[in-house]
Amino acid sequence: MTQRGTLGVAVIGTGRMGADHVRRISEVISGARVAAVVDVDAERAKNVASGVEGCTAYTEPDAAMAAADVDAVLIASPGPAHESALLAAFERDLPLLCEKPLTPDAASALRVLEAEQRLGHRRVQVGFMRRYDAEYVKLKALLDSGQLGRPLMLHNRHRNASSPPGFTDAMLINDSVVHEMDVTRWLLGQEITAVTVLRPTPSDVAPEGLADPQFVVLETDGGALVDVEIFVNCGFGYQVQAEAVCERGTARIGDGHAMVTNAAGRWGGTIAQDFVERFEEAYDREVQAWVDATRRGEVTGPSIWDGYAAAAVCEAGVRAQTEGRRTEVELIERPALYR
Amino acid sequence: MTQRGTLGVAVIGTGRMGADHVRRISEVISGARVAAVVDVDAERAKNVASGVEGCTAYTEPDAAMAAADVDAVLIASPGPAHESALLAAFERDLPLLCEKPLTPDAASALRVLEAEQRLGHRRVQVGFMRRYDAEYVKLKALLDSGQLGRPLMLHNRHRNASSPPGFTDAMLINDSVVHEMDVTRWLLGQEITAVTVLRPTPSDVAPEGLADPQFVVLETDGGALVDVEIFVNCGFGYQVQAEAVCERGTARIGDGHAMVTNAAGRWGGTIAQDFVERFEEAYDREVQAWVDATRRGEVTGPSIWDGYAAAAVCEAGVRAQTEGRRTEVELIERPALYR
Amino acid sequence: MTQRGTLGVAVIGTGRMGADHVRRISEVISGARVAAVVDVDAERAKNVASGVEGCTAYTEPDAAMAAADVDAVLIASPGPAHESALLAAFERDLPLLCEKPLTPDAASALRVLEAEQRLGHRRVQVGFMRRYDAEYVKLKALLDSGQLGRPLMLHNRHRNASSPPGFTDAMLINDSVVHEMDVTRWLLGQEITAVTVLRPTPSDVAPEGLADPQFVVLETDGGALVDVEIFVNCGFGYQVQAEAVCERGTARIGDGHAMVTNAAGRWGGTIAQDFVERFEEAYDREVQAWVDATRRGEVTGPSIWDGYAAAAVCEAGVRAQTEGRRTEVELIERPALYR
Amino acid sequence: MTQRGTLGVAVIGTGRMGADHVRRISEVISGARVAAVVDVDAERAKNVASGVEGCTAYTEPDAAMAAADVDAVLIASPGPAHESALLAAFERDLPLLCEKPLTPDAASALRVLEAEQRLGHRRVQVGFMRRYDAEYVKLKALLDSGQLGRPLMLHNRHRNASSPPGFTDAMLINDSVVHEMDVTRWLLGQEITAVTVLRPTPSDVAPEGLADPQFVVLETDGGALVDVEIFVNCGFGYQVQAEAVCERGTARIGDGHAMVTNAAGRWGGTIAQDFVERFEEAYDREVQAWVDATRRGEVTGPSIWDGYAAAAVCEAGVRAQTEGRRTEVELIERPALYR
Repeated sequence: MTQRGTLGVAVIGTGRMGADHVRRISEVISGARVAAVVDVDAERAKNVASGVEGCTAYTEPDAAMAAADVDAVLIASPGPAHESALLAAFERDLPLLCEKPLTPDAASALRVLEAEQRLGHRRVQVGFMRRYDAEYVKLKALLDSGQLGRPLMLHNRHRNASSPPGFTDAMLINDSVVHEMDVTRWLLGQEITAVTVLRPTPSDVAPEGLADPQFVVLETDGGALVDVEIFVNCGFGYQVQAEAVCERGTARIGDGHAMVTNAAGRWGGTIAQDFVERFEEAYDREVQAWVDATRRGEVTGPSIWDGYAAAAVCEAGVRAQTEGRRTEVELIERPALYR
Repeated sequence: MTQRGTLGVAVIGTGRMGADHVRRISEVISGARVAAVVDVDAERAKNVASGVEGCTAYTEPDAAMAAADVDAVLIASPGPAHESALLAAFERDLPLLCEKPLTPDAASALRVLEAEQRLGHRRVQVGFMRRYDAEYVKLKALLDSGQLGRPLMLHNRHRNASSPPGFTDAMLINDSVVHEMDVTRWLLGQEITAVTVLRPTPSDVAPEGLADPQFVVLETDGGALVDVEIFVNCGFGYQVQAEAVCERGTARIGDGHAMVTNAAGRWGGTIAQDFVERFEEAYDREVQAWVDATRRGEVTGPSIWDGYAAAAVCEAGVRAQTEGRRTEVELIERPALYR
Repeated sequence: MTQRGTLGVAVIGTGRMGADHVRRISEVISGARVAAVVDVDAERAKNVASGVEGCTAYTEPDAAMAAADVDAVLIASPGPAHESALLAAFERDLPLLCEKPLTPDAASALRVLEAEQRLGHRRVQVGFMRRYDAEYVKLKALLDSGQLGRPLMLHNRHRNASSPPGFTDAMLINDSVVHEMDVTRWLLGQEITAVTVLRPTPSDVAPEGLADPQFVVLETDGGALVDVEIFVNCGFGYQVQAEAVCERGTARIGDGHAMVTNAAGRWGGTIAQDFVERFEEAYDREVQAWVDATRRGEVTGPSIWDGYAAAAVCEAGVRAQTEGRRTEVELIERPALYR
Repeated sequence: MTQRGTLGVAVIGTGRMGADHVRRISEVISGARVAAVVDVDAERAKNVASGVEGCTAYTEPDAAMAAADVDAVLIASPGPAHESALLAAFERDLPLLCEKPLTPDAASALRVLEAEQRLGHRRVQVGFMRRYDAEYVKLKALLDSGQLGRPLMLHNRHRNASSPPGFTDAMLINDSVVHEMDVTRWLLGQEITAVTVLRPTPSDVAPEGLADPQFVVLETDGGALVDVEIFVNCGFGYQVQAEAVCERGTARIGDGHAMVTNAAGRWGGTIAQDFVERFEEAYDREVQAWVDATRRGEVTGPSIWDGYAAAAVCEAGVRAQTEGRRTEVELIERPALYR
């Protein structure tokens, strides 16, 4: 692979997310092509591959990675399959984009982190795509500029129209609030040290067994206080908002309103109905950034450390939720590779 | 009447507007009481008077003005009755608040203007209540501050949910756009020199015979260009907006949004359904300002000159509308009393 | 005092707040006049009285209350003086508007509450003026309508440009957050059962000794969760916002934007600089509502129970703040008089 | 060229716009590569080509079009050079994306239109990129849905921070308002039949010789009325807004606010400073849409008819501006190829 060549990507996992990344690489972004797709479901892999010129279907990640035209790997399989795919790619020193979660828990994330350290250089970008959303990027730039002084608090709203069947309290943390956990770490450049989960009486609209909404409070090692309203059956749409409260001002994102109508006695606009509508361009930018960096021979974006830290905070979050009390986060010391 | 005493007001006309002013003086504002009400309909006058302590009903304006406890006059009768009431009050040199229109046309307005000049001092405040609306006041203050440089254009929207039965093209100008004509003169401190009225194909929702909406362009002697969308069957509510475009910035009012909701897939809020909801406080402030000035022995606010100029611009507007071309406004030279 | 007569009010305390109420009753609202002012500082009382026709200055509340032309009492003296003034007025069975706080602590509030119970009927309206703010009133109406379902959470922001000298952590609760405590009880119609106070590292702009901002979490007996950001040195202005999160939608107030400008590379508008600018009309409506109800022989608005409950929640709040842990609120059973 | 192959594009013109398209095709969008660049300035062409793998520099459009790896042509040279390049491409029946203006005047546009008709099928997409802006696309979808009824008026604001040196009154129409002319035709699906240009006294900030701002009124064959404020020295930024007024509601775009800050006594946000910031994604979508359609063997988007109609309306606009009166637009009958 020369710096300028088109990147041949093996996409592991061809479910909803994997298929979407195949479409993105093939039809939206620049500089890469899908050379291989991998799925334990051979039929599904073949179907996806057939729609892409020069794409081969595999059932084994390792076979795809061994192919001559595969320069890089995008992991979009279910979380439990990530560790082995990551380790296999490390064997061949291939660059990776790994969808979140890095792995299902902090212990496995730590093993992957140690493996990358043994490799001696970063190879993995973890798929926290909010870091590529235009509004979050603006907020980050403003905070980094120091113009408003030090951030003291971060108020977050995370609302879904409705939760899929089988959604649990733990998934509220691991699948939903994990985004705010990463955003907190990234926006503030601080580690999360403790988690508290508070619960009002659940909405009557919430499915049996799910305490929805919940209110999560995060504390950071920089002394910031972060609150997250997570409400996955709010009914009206998908809405993600953040307000940073700093020493000399505040900044809020997520109210962006493309079109305002007056009709039937009301002014206002429509609310996005799912995360695709809200974050589609963030996904495009995320994958483009990965392709661009990889072609330059670099690794940028969220690291395995970020994936590990998110897993550790999630574990504390679920414990805080279960035990109903403030729970401290345990992290190993940050290795030099990730400083 | 001492400066501090409670003002005894005679309210002439006890229709919707008159009755509302009676309520306002009695129950909302400070420093005045309704001492007399006048209506050709004796029954209606009596009914209104009976609800107010110490209030006498009359059928003749002159009789009310002669009463010992009447210190000032508020005219809220139909426009054609204004001239004689104004002249009668001038006889007794009583302070007046005269609802718009001052009189039904420029010729009669000119007669009243000449009468007040003969009196030798201002006695009349004309009821252009938008000058007392908090948002317009803010816009005026900003323009006057010079902060944004000279105003170059003024874009206006004036929308009603629906027009009352019998509403005509001429009433679009005389009853509706007259507000923007006054606002233009007041905000810019300039006279209007020409009017053009443009018409798209009318809305199917417009009543038979009414060309609704229309688009009015005003030119001023200060070189400003003013456009007014007038749409009296917009269906969704009552909405008044203005945007001043100046040399170094623009300023817009009328988007004030008290409460924003998210529900049923939409964000936004409700739109006022009539001018009472939108301008009620402006009416309160207008009458309070009149009472306060009168108790201090002063006359402030829109003058007879403003009433006359509005009438002259309206006449040009109706002619422009009828003849389908740009029509110049004819004004006498501004008398010293109104400079 | 007949129902229709002008109410003669004795204003106790002629500091900033008292003097403002004297102006309000004399020049803004309808149906009342200031018959007496009371201040331990005789000079100050005389000065204020001299500006109002027919107003007598006193140094003793009881003397003012005994005056023939005093029909009602407005208490605007410092909190520690409230209890004795309230009890003195009860002796004469006079209607009262008592500025917040009702009294400085829950124990004294309870004594006043018991005294009013002995009187056998409500006589006191407590000065929680946010209940009269147009935006809060809209939010309350929306919640009461049930249109959005049951309220689950209430997010509040309470920001001041800067705190006055000598402002303490306890005052953050007792003077500032007390408003959100009352608003919570009123909007939700629920009692507050527990308070938690969280603190990020204070802003460098905060004065020595004040932990600013703080984050207060309230729990209610209806199962709602309420959070309050209190930030009294935010630097940019006075800002009060509330967002109710309900089962089928959310509603937010406090973003009301009268005028939007484009200038110097930015769109936006100005922020109120103090509570007077933000809540002046709420004060007007509050006192007008009190005068109107009193003239009708009724007592409406926040009751002594509301004043007592606020004091009890504040005490729990200060304890929560001091001890750094969730603190339960202790309330007596609600007497029949206040149900 | 098969349907799936990467499109080899010859970019004609390597000035600011051409170089930006080269970057876009190479680094942003999918499915195409720059195979050739053409510029009369051989040095500049070589410089641009050297940054792109497999790209050859030419000084003659025809030579580039003759190259084996060139499948399609993007014209970004100055307007006067467009006609010959278009005709040369027609000789080879190559698909084209032609930057606006199609050609400098209606007569030359008509010649190109006739040439494409002789070809017998559409080959050209004209570069009116606003049709690819997400907000305009939403507005178009809303209008097409019929939800708000028939559009009656369209209010437009088009503001630039400052005009480049040498900007003339005619350029106000040909370079700036031409966008609103195209948007009007596209949003409403109607032809423009007359143009009027009104002028307030110019801003003191406007350069000598330029009457800035101006106010353009368009009439359409569907009876709609369209107004455009064009203000190219507004000072505060680049701002494009449109409000459609329909029979049952209105819709406004261009107020989209990504991030709202509170600081220094003001709430609000930043304004884009140039069209790149505002419309960069529209350019990306425009070129991607062209590449996608071309690879499918189709031609979509604005046609030569649209380019010709815009030229005819611009000519009427400049005449209206010069002669100071309403000027009718003359169009040939629409050929079958463009219906």
